[in-house]
Amino acid sequence: MFVAVIGDGLCSAETARLAEEVGQHLAEKGAVVICGGLGGVMEAACRGAKAAGGLTIGILPGRSWHDANPYVDIPIVTGMGEARNVVVVSSAQSVIAVSGGYGTLSEIAHALKLGIPVVGLGSWRLSKEGSDKERGITAATDPADAVRKALALAQG
Amino acid sequence: MFVAVIGDGLCSAETARLAEEVGQHLAEKGAVVICGGLGGVMEAACRGAKAAGGLTIGILPGRSWHDANPYVDIPIVTGMGEARNVVVVSSAQSVIAVSGGYGTLSEIAHALKLGIPVVGLGSWRLSKEGSDKERGITAATDPADAVRKALALAQG
Amino acid sequence: MFVAVIGDGLCSAETARLAEEVGQHLAEKGAVVICGGLGGVMEAACRGAKAAGGLTIGILPGRSWHDANPYVDIPIVTGMGEARNVVVVSSAQSVIAVSGGYGTLSEIAHALKLGIPVVGLGSWRLSKEGSDKERGITAATDPADAVRKALALAQG
Amino acid sequence: MFVAVIGDGLCSAETARLAEEVGQHLAEKGAVVICGGLGGVMEAACRGAKAAGGLTIGILPGRSWHDANPYVDIPIVTGMGEARNVVVVSSAQSVIAVSGGYGTLSEIAHALKLGIPVVGLGSWRLSKEGSDKERGITAATDPADAVRKALALAQG
Repeated sequence: MFVAVIGDGLCSAETARLAEEVGQHLAEKGAVVICGGLGGVMEAACRGAKAAGGLTIGILPGRSWHDANPYVDIPIVTGMGEARNVVVVSSAQSVIAVSGGYGTLSEIAHALKLGIPVVGLGSWRLSKEGSDKERGITAATDPADAVRKALALAQG
Repeated sequence: MFVAVIGDGLCSAETARLAEEVGQHLAEKGAVVICGGLGGVMEAACRGAKAAGGLTIGILPGRSWHDANPYVDIPIVTGMGEARNVVVVSSAQSVIAVSGGYGTLSEIAHALKLGIPVVGLGSWRLSKEGSDKERGITAATDPADAVRKALALAQG
Repeated sequence: MFVAVIGDGLCSAETARLAEEVGQHLAEKGAVVICGGLGGVMEAACRGAKAAGGLTIGILPGRSWHDANPYVDIPIVTGMGEARNVVVVSSAQSVIAVSGGYGTLSEIAHALKLGIPVVGLGSWRLSKEGSDKERGITAATDPADAVRKALALAQG
Repeated sequence: MFVAVIGDGLCSAETARLAEEVGQHLAEKGAVVICGGLGGVMEAACRGAKAAGGLTIGILPGRSWHDANPYVDIPIVTGMGEARNVVVVSSAQSVIAVSGGYGTLSEIAHALKLGIPVVGLGSWRLSKEGSDKERGITAATDPADAVRKALALAQG
C-alpha cells in the first residue's frame, strides 16, 4: 500500500506533530509513505514513518536529491516544479492532506480528478458557488482516524 | 495580455454560453485566450474569441494536435496528461474559471500557488476547515464582469 | 505548418547566422517557428522569423515569461525544466536542428521517437555501436535546404 | 547508490540477458535499480536485481501502476508519457544503457545534459557532423564492466 501525505513545506509545530503521527501510523500498518520530499509536513510524515521502521519516497520538484529531507529513503528527482504534484498523488492509492496551502490544494484536486480518495486533517473545504454541499474530501478527526480512513478507501 | 479560460471538457449549454461570452469579451479587449484546447468550456471560449477576431492557444494533454477543438489557432502538444494543467495557468497573466470540476480546481490551485489571479464565474468556493473565510478566487457576476476583473488583476 | 528550430542557448556568430536564415525562410514559407524560447539559436531563429513577418512560439523551461527572448510572440511557461524539451518537438510537424549540444540531442531523440522528422544543419550524427549506418537525421547543406526538407517531410 | 538501467521495452533474448546481468551485478553491489518500469530491458534489469535481493524503482509513463513489470518494487506513476524519461535519469547517480532506440537516446541525452555519467553496452554512438570524435557515452565490454564503470563514475 502506498499512501501520499501532503501539506505545506513550512508548518506549525502542531501541524508537524499531526503529520508525524500520520507517518508513524502508516508505517505501523505497513504502508509506504509518498510525499513531495521537502520540509514541513513532508519531513514530519517521513520522520514519523522512519521512527516506526517504514519506507519513505520523496517526489522532488527541483533538480537535486540533496533537496530531500533527511528521512526520505527514495528521492525521485523530477526537475518539474509544480508539475511534480500530480506525480505525488498519482503514485498513491490514497492521500492524506494535513492542513496545507494552494500547492496542497492542487494535489487534492489532481487526486480527486484521478479518482484517488483524499482524507483531510484540518485541510481544505470545497464547495461550488451557489451550494453549501461539501465535496471530495473525507474529513478525519485525528491522525489515527485519518490513517484508518485512508487505508479503508485505498484504491487497488 | 494572455488570459486562461478554464472549465470542464463537457458542460451544459448555459455554461458554454458564459464561456463563449468570456472568450468574446477577452478578444474584444485584445487579450489572447489560453486554454486546455479540448471541448466544453475550452471550445466555447475559443469560439467566442475567434468570433471577435482574437487569437487562441490550446495546451493539449494528449499526443496529437488533432485533439484540439476547431477554434484553436495554436495547439501546443504536451503529451503530459494532467501535468499540462500547470502549463495552462503558468502561461497566463490571469485566469477565468467558468464552473468546472476537479481538473479545473487543480488549475485554480496551481494559479493561486504561483500568484496568478483567478476570477470565478459559478466556480469553486474554497475555505479551510474550521473557518468560513473564503479564499483565493475573486467572484464575478457575469462574463463582462469576469473579463473586466481578470484584466484589472492581470500580473505583469 | 509548425516547425521547431532547436539548438544551443549560447552559440557562435556563424551558428546564429544559420539559425536566423532558417527562421527567415520558414516565415517566408508561412510556417510558424516553435522553439525553446531562450537565447542563442532560439533567439536567432525567432529574429529571422520576425524579420520576415512570421509568428514565433517559445516553450520556456522556467517559471516566467520574462525569460523569453524579445522575438517570441507567444511565450508558453512550463516551469518543467528539461521536460519541456519534449513539448517543443511534440508541437511541431517537423524539426530543424542547428548544431546543438546534449539538450538539442534530447529533442532530436524525442522527435524521432514520436515519428516527427528531423533535419540537421551541422548537428548530431547518430549510429549504433558495431555499425556505421547513420540514423534518423536528414542532413541539410544550408538554411534554405533545411527549410525545404523540413517542409517536405512535415507530418500532418 | 541509485543507477538507472535504460533500454527498449521490447528487446532480443540476448539483450535481455545482458540487462538481467546488469541488474544482478548492481544489486550485488548494493545499488538500487531505477528504470522506466515497463518490459524488455527494464523488466530484465529488475528481474536480475530481484534475483540478487535488490530494490527496484519503475518510473512509469502511463497513468496506472498496473503497467509496471512484476519485478518493480516501487512504481512511480507519472502519467507524463515521454516526459517521464528525464525523471528516470535525473533520479540516478549514473546510467547504464543496454542497446536501445530513440527513447533510450533521449534518456542518454538528458543524462549527459544534466552531467550524469552514461555507460553504454551495445548502445548509441554519438558524434557531431564533420567530426569523428565520439562523445558522451563510456563504452563497456560486458555487464560486469558496465556496472563497475557506472559505480565508479556515479555522481554524489
